[in-house]
Parts: sequence; C-alpha cells; structure tokens
Amino acid sequence: LDANNLQGAKSLLIPVQPVDIAEAIGDLPEAMQLIAFRLLNKTEAIDVYEHLDYTTQQSLIEEFKRQDVLDIVDKMSPDDRARLFDELPASVVKRILAQLSPEERQATNLLLGYEENTAGRIMTPEYTSSKANITLEETLNRLRSHATISELIYYIYVTDESRHLTGVVSLKDLVTHEPQQTLGEIMKSDVIYIKTDMDQEEVAKVVQRYDFLAVPVVDRELRLVGIVTVDDVIDIIEKEATEDIYALGAVQSDGDNYFETNLFTVARRRVTWLLVLLFTNTITGSIIGGQEELLTRITVLAAFIPLLIGSGGNIGTQSSTVVIRGLSTDELKDLGVGKVIFREAIAGALLGLGLGLITILWAYLLPQSQRNLTVAVTVGISLMAISILASIAGSGLPFLFKLLKLDPALMSGPFISTAVDVLGVLIYFSIAGYVLGF
Amino acid sequence: LDANNLQGAKSLLIPVQPVDIAEAIGDLPEAMQLIAFRLLNKTEAIDVYEHLDYTTQQSLIEEFKRQDVLDIVDKMSPDDRARLFDELPASVVKRILAQLSPEERQATNLLLGYEENTAGRIMTPEYTSSKANITLEETLNRLRSHATISELIYYIYVTDESRHLTGVVSLKDLVTHEPQQTLGEIMKSDVIYIKTDMDQEEVAKVVQRYDFLAVPVVDRELRLVGIVTVDDVIDIIEKEATEDIYALGAVQSDGDNYFETNLFTVARRRVTWLLVLLFTNTITGSIIGGQEELLTRITVLAAFIPLLIGSGGNIGTQSSTVVIRGLSTDELKDLGVGKVIFREAIAGALLGLGLGLITILWAYLLPQSQRNLTVAVTVGISLMAISILASIAGSGLPFLFKLLKLDPALMSGPFISTAVDVLGVLIYFSIAGYVLGF
Repeated sequence: LDANNLQGAKSLLIPVQPVDIAEAIGDLPEAMQLIAFRLLNKTEAIDVYEHLDYTTQQSLIEEFKRQDVLDIVDKMSPDDRARLFDELPASVVKRILAQLSPEERQATNLLLGYEENTAGRIMTPEYTSSKANITLEETLNRLRSHATISELIYYIYVTDESRHLTGVVSLKDLVTHEPQQTLGEIMKSDVIYIKTDMDQEEVAKVVQRYDFLAVPVVDRELRLVGIVTVDDVIDIIEKEATEDIYALGAVQSDGDNYFETNLFTVARRRVTWLLVLLFTNTITGSIIGGQEELLTRITVLAAFIPLLIGSGGNIGTQSSTVVIRGLSTDELKDLGVGKVIFREAIAGALLGLGLGLITILWAYLLPQSQRNLTVAVTVGISLMAISILASIAGSGLPFLFKLLKLDPALMSGPFISTAVDVLGVLIYFSIAGYVLGF
Repeated sequence: LDANNLQGAKSLLIPVQPVDIAEAIGDLPEAMQLIAFRLLNKTEAIDVYEHLDYTTQQSLIEEFKRQDVLDIVDKMSPDDRARLFDELPASVVKRILAQLSPEERQATNLLLGYEENTAGRIMTPEYTSSKANITLEETLNRLRSHATISELIYYIYVTDESRHLTGVVSLKDLVTHEPQQTLGEIMKSDVIYIKTDMDQEEVAKVVQRYDFLAVPVVDRELRLVGIVTVDDVIDIIEKEATEDIYALGAVQSDGDNYFETNLFTVARRRVTWLLVLLFTNTITGSIIGGQEELLTRITVLAAFIPLLIGSGGNIGTQSSTVVIRGLSTDELKDLGVGKVIFREAIAGALLGLGLGLITILWAYLLPQSQRNLTVAVTVGISLMAISILASIAGSGLPFLFKLLKLDPALMSGPFISTAVDVLGVLIYFSIAGYVLGF
C-alpha cells in the first residue's frame, strides 16, 4: 500500500507542465520561491522561469548569484527575454546583456530595437530555414541535430542566397513526401509574410485568417528575420480584447493585471474618464438649472429626466458597442460607414418608437395629479428623437475617432451615455417648452 | 513586356489561399458565385467551400446538382461539416447525411450528438494515433501514406488496446529522435486531455495555458475520440470576447454577425434589455416624482440629478467591467470575492471623495441665486455615498450572477448604471431631506 501510494504521489508530482510549476512557485511566499526554484533541474528551470510573472522573475533575478542568472537568461528564448528586459531596471538589463553569449545578445538586441506592440518585438528569431536545393532527407537529418535551438520547427522556410524568403515547407509535407525530393520541389512559393513594423493586432488577424501555426516576419529588404508563433497570437488576441473591454467600461488599461496593481494606480486609471464625464454632466446640469421656471411650474417634468437620458445612453451604448467590436474584428468591413450609421439610425427609430409608445402609456397611467397627457406626449416624442440621435452618435463617433487615428474604443459606453445626456435634456426641454407653450 | 505582364498576372492570380478565394466568391453576386466556384478544381473547391460563410454555403448547396454536393460535403472535415449542418434545414441535412460514405456519416453523427459549445462538438475525429511498440520509422512511413486524411498530424497520440490515451509524441520529437526507437520510449506519458462535455471556453483556456497546437478529447471511459486544434481555439476566444463585449453593451448575441442580420432581428436583440432598463428607470422617475414638494421649493436640486446618477453609473460600470473581464480571463482567481469587493469599495470611496470635493466646489461657484452651500454639501456627500455603493454593486453583482449560474457579463454597464440610478436618487433625496430639514 505504501509503495503504491509513493508511486501515486510520484506520478502526481513529477510529470507536471512548466506552466503549472511556475504558478505554484508564484503562489509561494517570496522567501520560499528561491528555494523551490533551486530544486528544479536546469532545463526545467528555464521553462518554468519563462512562465513566471514579471514580479516573480524580477525578485528571483535579484536574489540569484550572478552566474545562475546568466545561465538561465542566456537560455531563455529571445522573445521571452526581450519581454523580461522590458520590465527590468535598465541598469540590470545592461549588466546582463553585456555578459550573454554573443549570439544570444545579438538576438535580444535585434528584438529590443523594434517598437513595442509590433511584429518585430513579438517575433522570435529562432526559425528553421534552408535552401531550395536541399533534399528532404538531409533536412530531416539537420533537424535531428539542431531541433533544440528552434522554438517551432513546424515550418521550414526556404530562402535564397541573400536570405530572401522564397518558399515554405511544413513539417507535415516534409515527412509525407519522398526523402529524395528537394525542398524546392515541394515548397509552396506563395508565402504569406508580415513586415517587422506591422501592429501586433494585425499580425494576430493574419495568423487567425489563414489558420497558421506561425507566420514569417521579413525586414524592409524582404529578408527573413523571424517568426511569430500561434501561442503568442492567442495571448495578443486576449490582451487586445481586455483592452477593448476596459476602454468600453471607461477604464484605462496599461497592460498590467488590474487586480495586481495598488489602489492608487486603480484610482488613477479610472479618474481621468470620470473627470471628463463629471464635466459633461455639469453641462447637463446647467441646462436643467437654466429651466428653473419651467420646472417650478411643471415639476413632474423632472421625474422623466432619468428615463430619457438613461434610455438614450443605453441605445447609444448598444450602437457604439457593436460598431467598436465590428471595427476590431473586421465584421463590418463589407458595409460602408454610411450604411452602418443609417442602419443604426433606423434601428434607433424602431426602438425609440416602441419605447416612446410604452412611455406615453405609462405617463398616462400615472396616479392622481401627476397625470398629464401633454407631458406624456412630450416625453414620448423626446424619447424617439433621443433614440435616433443616440444611435447616430453611438455608431458615428467610433468611425470619427478612427478617422482621427484614435482608438475607436475610447468612444466608450460611459462617454456615449454622457454625451447623449446633454443632447437628451436639450431636446427634452426644447420639445417641452414648445408643446407646453413656453 | 506583354509576356512579362502575363507572368505577373499569373503569379498574382494563381497561388492564392483558399480563404482569400472564399472571400472573393462571397462578395460576388449570387448568380456569379456558382460559376466562379465551378472554375476551381476539386481539391481547391473543398478547401474554399469550408471557408465560405454559411449563407453562401447554403445557396451553393441549393444550386448544385446532387452529386456535386455530395462529393464536396463528403470530403469536408467532419467538424466544419457539423457546423454547416447546424445551419442547414433539417430536411436537407437528412438527405445529404443518408448519402454520405459510411465512415464520414459516422464521424458527423458522432459530432452532432454532442451539445453545442462543448469540446465534443468542436473537436475533429481526424487525429493520428498509434501504439507504443511501433518504431518511429514505421510511424513516419504510415504518416507518409495517410497524411491527407488527418487534419493535424503535429501530435501522434499513443493509445492502448482499448483506445485509452497513454501518451503523446509531437511530430517534432518524432523527426528528431533515432528512427529505431519506439513511440513508447520517447512519448510523454503525462498527457493533458479534456472531456467531450467541457465547455468550449474552458477548452480554449487549456490550449492557451499550455501553448498546445491541439488538445486530445476523451469520452467518459477516457477513450480518445478526437482533438481540438488551435485554429478553432482562436475563433472561440474571439467569439467569446465578442459575446462578453455585446453583453456588456446590453446587446444580445446569438452567434451571427450582427451586421448581416436584418433590422428587425437587430431591434429584437436590443429591445429586451431596453425594456428592463425602461422599467428600472420608471422606478427612478417615481422616486423623483414623489419628491415634488422638495423639488418645487428647491428646484436647483434637479440640476444635479444627471451628475449624481451619471457618476454613480460610470463608477459602477468601471467596477463591473474589470470584475467581469477578470472572471473570464481568470486574472482575479488568486483574490477572494470579499477582497475584490473590498478593494473596489475603497477605490470607490477614493474616487467619490475626489469627485465630491470637486462638485462641492463647482456647486459653490454657481452663478447668482442658484448658489447654495447647503445644496453643494448635500450633493458632495451624496456623490461620495453613491460612489461607494456603485463600486460595491458593480463588483458584487457579477459574482452573485456567477453564483446563480448566470453569465456574469449580463451584469452589464447599462444595467449597473440603471440599478445605481435608483439607489442614487434615493440616497440623494434622503440626504437632501435630512440636510435641508424636510
């Protein structure tokens, strides 16, 4: 029984994935992290280190002796290392960089030279390339001796003398064709590639569109310099979605985990938008404040303010949500801007008509002294006008932001709501003043 | 020159990716689609057909002669075919299914038997498996003869006599080890697998966490039945993000492209939430309506309603946005529910304090008769109280929804805003009544 248990415990403990070990280590108190990490053998240690979060990576680096750090950092894959260096203090980076092996140093320098969030920065220079006149058998033999250095060998890129990309052979094609054929005979020569300065969001779209496991990256002279792998693309897609969602909720995103930042950073990330919205709300307030005479005489008008600006805000938010998401997933690229806004305006009119009729009915059914058919009609008409305007603003403003080269997602729900509030009370009091004869 | 041009045109036209051809065909008028599609050779036709959107797939299926349809549908990969069948009228599915080749029929029936959005439905049964005692050389030879049937051969799964999953060998390991070794010798036996009934969102998380190109799917008896590939996972991540974003914007999502549905469907997908919100707003309206006496005497109170409920709504939206996104990306799983809500409440208090002070200042600087220090203080205190409550409601309600097994994203920005409106005016008039002595 004991032996059985031991066996069971062993099978539970030993063959776990690096990402799971990394998480377990990250959860330990800081003093224990170093001890736990030392228990790993060298190959494991590198894999696990790559999966640790930045704070743990940093604290470990500071506690390590010089040579240990160098060994691990030297063997990390260049793209992970570039990302770590982004987070470390510049002095530490400089010190480490100076002591890396020459080829690793070159690889990292290469990546750090590209702008953040571009293909150049997220690519890894560890691709597999070969020449067109090499046979499949020879390629396989070469892979057998070099496989550990290449992060992803599922594609072999074929280049000419000056490193220009001329074709691609998948590992699948490599093993399923006759070993005597050359790469040139079986390669696909219509390679889809990306440039180093392409935005990572666009890179993700290319990989997603063509179901690639990796996409080759070329420099301005069209020479192959690296690949972007599908696992990095998944992380990009998730990060970009979080950014969009935060922007829609009027929270600034800065790439860090919101729940791991301190409360003052949290407040800072939220206060900018709140101040903008506070200012806009004071405009709405001033408009209402300016209608004191009307409100004193017909106080019930105030009771409909939340309903009108609330519905307007909601319809505007719906329109901006679908347009912003459509812009970032390319779902609406077949429709012109005008058509999208027109569709939203019609939808707004339909929704406004429905809600307006319901509101007239409700206002008409109010108890006692508050019942006032004129007010009911005023509210109904205002609601319809506000719905149409809110749809147009909600769908049009993201396009305007895009045209101005700003992030359409900044045109967030809270912002649309607040902007529509101003329009809403203006419309409401104009119609009320007209209908009620002021 | 002419010859040159011809060559150029050819190289532009011929080697294009199936997904690009599919898009070009989708953009043609319906009458042309069939003609263009006929120009493709058979292998191309299947690839292209898989990438067409559902409406084009359907219209082509109706125009095709019986045998053409069968040939293409028979050769589609089973997971794409299952998805097409989901969209086709039941009678057409039945007719086609009856005439498929027996093994293809079985594969499709297998997939259609699983619930939508589970691993069973999105997996493909076309995986590569082998036994542990087979040598690498023999495996390579087998792959060479069978490679076309398997969708992704980058992993070879090792199973025992009763199809239980015992190990996995990546194609990379296969080609980089000595051909005389057996699969059993080089396989990793700690295979991470998923069950057929796992939700597709969870499947995506597994693939993302371990950077897999595919994950094996097992049935209840732990027998290997299929794999889910990384390209499908990317589509799932994007679809789930769209669903979350739509829910946050109070738009129902039903899997279809919003911009391709007709306007009445659009109105239907938006009206449910608007009605809920309209109802909630009438409550806010009633509360204000009930304060007629107070409002008649101090009309300026009405001017602050948009500011108070607007700020409350915005702070609530921010809190619910970060919590909802945190729930779906697992970012906050290390923090307890209590701690998240507490953090948000403190952040709300900080933000409320800042905004409250600014508002008091602003209210104090109002022109002429409207200046009223008592009102200013009332507004300031209310704003702070509302901010704290909005943060607690915004962060707590998504957890409550999750506890009730509902989608936390339903606790959307518009809903939080509207719920906070009710609380906001209640607090405002209570404080106003108290401070102003009613």
